[in-house]
Amino acid sequence: MAATPAAAVPTHPVRAAYFVSDSTGITAETLGNALLANFPGFVFRKHTIPFVDTVDAAAGVARQIAADDAAGREPIVFTTAKNPAVRAVVTAVPATHIDLLSGHLGELEQALGTTASEQLGQFHMLGDTTEYFARMRAVEYAIEHDDGQSARALDLADVIIVAPSRCGKTPTTMYLALQYGLLVANYPLTDDDFPAEGLPPLIAKYSARCFGLTTTPLRLSQVRHERRPDSRYSSLAQCTTELRRAEKLYARNRIPFLNSSTKSVEEMSAVILQTLGLRR
Amino acid sequence: MAATPAAAVPTHPVRAAYFVSDSTGITAETLGNALLANFPGFVFRKHTIPFVDTVDAAAGVARQIAADDAAGREPIVFTTAKNPAVRAVVTAVPATHIDLLSGHLGELEQALGTTASEQLGQFHMLGDTTEYFARMRAVEYAIEHDDGQSARALDLADVIIVAPSRCGKTPTTMYLALQYGLLVANYPLTDDDFPAEGLPPLIAKYSARCFGLTTTPLRLSQVRHERRPDSRYSSLAQCTTELRRAEKLYARNRIPFLNSSTKSVEEMSAVILQTLGLRR
Repeated sequence: MAATPAAAVPTHPVRAAYFVSDSTGITAETLGNALLANFPGFVFRKHTIPFVDTVDAAAGVARQIAADDAAGREPIVFTTAKNPAVRAVVTAVPATHIDLLSGHLGELEQALGTTASEQLGQFHMLGDTTEYFARMRAVEYAIEHDDGQSARALDLADVIIVAPSRCGKTPTTMYLALQYGLLVANYPLTDDDFPAEGLPPLIAKYSARCFGLTTTPLRLSQVRHERRPDSRYSSLAQCTTELRRAEKLYARNRIPFLNSSTKSVEEMSAVILQTLGLRR
Repeated sequence: MAATPAAAVPTHPVRAAYFVSDSTGITAETLGNALLANFPGFVFRKHTIPFVDTVDAAAGVARQIAADDAAGREPIVFTTAKNPAVRAVVTAVPATHIDLLSGHLGELEQALGTTASEQLGQFHMLGDTTEYFARMRAVEYAIEHDDGQSARALDLADVIIVAPSRCGKTPTTMYLALQYGLLVANYPLTDDDFPAEGLPPLIAKYSARCFGLTTTPLRLSQVRHERRPDSRYSSLAQCTTELRRAEKLYARNRIPFLNSSTKSVEEMSAVILQTLGLRR
């Protein structure tokens, strides 16, 4: 069979994308990426430039963007800088400029009948010591209770994530702790927990706060293979059995659950918050 | 002394704020919060409503917003739903509507000379298994290497965060792991590490990847007091000494460092990425 000629491979045009921020760049990155994801036919070479809060810093960014040839195509520049002088310097560069903040700030000023504060937005700032302590405590709680390591203070848990090994408990636990300051424990279902009909004794009395994860046998087998190749643990048969038993256990005990195989950590976290009625 | 009359306390007008999304709500929340932070004179009662991806779901949201009296003031509704039918239902409710996505999508369509994909933005979707594995591995690495627990595979670390106990190493480590899939270890400086002039032997050969944290003695004392009240460990004298020694150690070994006392986890992470030249 003849090789497919190279010209038949669809080419994805390359564009440079800049996320320019006067703070951490997280807002610019989050919204900018959400927007760019709608154009799957392109390849975007992404650059995040945080802490651009002076005209001098802005001039440096402008030079960098101007020097970016990106195959002769105009870069796309997402900006969240609040300072008009900083914005003016950045937007003077020939590029597609998308101002993520100031237009909406104007709409809010009109709706609230006041001008935006001259202080930097405090959302990503520490400011609130209480919030800092809550997050620190939540992350430490999550580490301590990872993989059922500790039964101590399980009564404090806002959520207990239950699942067979390698279904995605740990990253989801950590995301909920870090983003929302929630106390999240997780409990690994093992062969010892079956064929009992009820929940494992350690978590039985907290069933209202339990949330189950499942996945597809094939995916679980792949993930386990990374850890222990060619083992009984990673075999398709073992994975199929464990997942089937776990799903039965969830159903019998009315534990809400979801399939993690096509979901990101962010999506699973959003579903868990919504299902258990937890405030974000 | 007479109590201050209640009327003298400045009143912060209350407004309801809704973040309405057809996906996780994270983008709407992130940008919406960044915008609202510019109006510190108001108290916003915030509601995130994720997964609003049908006209029926949108109608439910519209009813909820319409029923929200919020002291007689119009709610503010931030929307990131892509589906025009969903948006039409939501925006029919009397409120201040701020469309975070579709205006910018239009700008991008024009710049790229194509229409946005009908598929949902894949940014928050798992999609990429490689990325999922990277994050899972990074979180597990962070847990394993928390608080200098393990010297194994320290040569794999992208970053080693060095600091006295309770300066904010753990939450920052976890944030870098979860958001950026970086392998981050952390190393607690103790009395045993002084008065040596050089870095502790375990991390000395990785000095180019080390980043130090410091804080103010008062704050460190407060944070330590939460863990061990009225101990030598939490005394202002001990905290002052440890921080002074740590800062000297960083300076002598050219370890970049920052003061965590007025910074959020997000800000510290952004500075670390920028200083060590790590790609996000």
